[in-house]
Amino acid sequence: MISEKKILKTFQHLINTSDADDLIEVGSGDDAAVLDTKGKNIVHSLDISKVGTHFPPNFLPEDIAYRSVAVALSDLAAMGAYPSFMTIGLTSNSKDLKWYEDFAKGIENSIKDFKIELVGGDVTFGEISICVNVFGFLYDKPLKRSGAMPGEKIFVTGTLGIGKKGLDDVTNDVDSIYSQKFRRPEPQFLKSEFISKLASSCIDISDGLIKDLSSICSMSNVGANIKFEDIPILKDVADLSYGDDFELCFTISEANSLFLDESDYFCIGEIIEGNEILLFKNNNLITIETDGWDSFK
Amino acid sequence: MISEKKILKTFQHLINTSDADDLIEVGSGDDAAVLDTKGKNIVHSLDISKVGTHFPPNFLPEDIAYRSVAVALSDLAAMGAYPSFMTIGLTSNSKDLKWYEDFAKGIENSIKDFKIELVGGDVTFGEISICVNVFGFLYDKPLKRSGAMPGEKIFVTGTLGIGKKGLDDVTNDVDSIYSQKFRRPEPQFLKSEFISKLASSCIDISDGLIKDLSSICSMSNVGANIKFEDIPILKDVADLSYGDDFELCFTISEANSLFLDESDYFCIGEIIEGNEILLFKNNNLITIETDGWDSFK
Repeated sequence: MISEKKILKTFQHLINTSDADDLIEVGSGDDAAVLDTKGKNIVHSLDISKVGTHFPPNFLPEDIAYRSVAVALSDLAAMGAYPSFMTIGLTSNSKDLKWYEDFAKGIENSIKDFKIELVGGDVTFGEISICVNVFGFLYDKPLKRSGAMPGEKIFVTGTLGIGKKGLDDVTNDVDSIYSQKFRRPEPQFLKSEFISKLASSCIDISDGLIKDLSSICSMSNVGANIKFEDIPILKDVADLSYGDDFELCFTISEANSLFLDESDYFCIGEIIEGNEILLFKNNNLITIETDGWDSFK
Repeated sequence: MISEKKILKTFQHLINTSDADDLIEVGSGDDAAVLDTKGKNIVHSLDISKVGTHFPPNFLPEDIAYRSVAVALSDLAAMGAYPSFMTIGLTSNSKDLKWYEDFAKGIENSIKDFKIELVGGDVTFGEISICVNVFGFLYDKPLKRSGAMPGEKIFVTGTLGIGKKGLDDVTNDVDSIYSQKFRRPEPQFLKSEFISKLASSCIDISDGLIKDLSSICSMSNVGANIKFEDIPILKDVADLSYGDDFELCFTISEANSLFLDESDYFCIGEIIEGNEILLFKNNNLITIETDGWDSFK
């Protein structure tokens, strides 16, 4: 019988317990962690990743761990923040200790890649679900969703549709650059830092461009005018309504947009007065379906 | 069909979105929350509560919500900290919007009772599981598990075994003071504040007195000598190995123990050299079984 104690041991070496650490006053192993944030504002986000919903049943434990952390961190990048520390609530029904060791390897790689510290967590038994809490600090100002202004340019940081193709390939056991990116998503911290002084609003594309841009528009009380031909997509218009790309979508004044390198940032349209998102393809207004959660015109 | 958007709406009124708030720089609704902790150290703990493991299948959504928050907060009390804000990751397989409305009522009551702010969260579909992240600030110094010294007195703050009886009553649909306490556990914040200047080590009794006292002993490199007759218990010796009481167990110097009111704090023994917990009943050394996770003599 596998015990909680044995499971926790597979993570023990990853948890920073040093009281001498710059951040950690009291490390994990006690009832709670005590953290010294040096007076800086904390940026926090929480993300649940669940088997069947956020990754397919054949997804490996190391990949589950890494992807869960990366996906949660994308929200920090979208807010103009860099990672500092995290806690993980793991629910798993595996009775195989190797599953937990492999999961721990994925966490370890995420710790290295994102320069983040694991400061605590909890483990319980049940259908696989990872609740990741990430904490970070601002590069500059917070990149809120509510700062878009009419006349500003709308940019995305990369090709959309890669997340969808990655999920298809992982589900079908196809090894490709897309399945690799699905297993190791890259939160856009470098671009977040670069635009944090320049952009007016920002969101990460986790629910699909149209839905996510809708969030910026509704929170900023503006509309948007976007041109299909200018959007970097992998395949077709469906790539606009599927998420999991974890690129950033942001708005920026025309003057500030001159600082952006055209090979890294793609202008897809502009913010307008009103409350509609107008998508043009060959100068014709087109309508695309989202998954029904939000209305879209 | 119930949508994530509809579910989130049932919680919307509970989330503090005011940017003018003292704590909150950027409220929920954005990619992440930005929090101003005024330079104070943050105390953080995470707790997963799961149907079948932490509460029975017939537990009502309002009670699930309230208990999940209270249980998580008990770790802050054990660390000598008071609550400030929280985030909640909710997984539920209910397709009934009323379930979420009732859950939200439980959260609302916990917000009122514990003077805590909800600053964000996530919702996903699956077997019921609540991942609660609580954040607070220290009353005085951190009440670590590692501070116990030989010669100190060991105290508990209340009767043990009430959690076990409460679970039995809830499971059997018996309405009693015990089932009521199971639905509305009380983290010991008042006592935590009072002892925060006085005690040397502290833990909350969530896994059973013997296991939890073992944690203090192993982290402090000491042993303990406890007297069964002095332990306030509801029923029998089994009450020492079952948890969920959420009383505090702490150690304190004899001099400081004179400040404690005998009707609120119960001395059950003392810290000794060594690494064993010795339990005496009628002056005879007895051995009790824990659930096998920790050795115990």
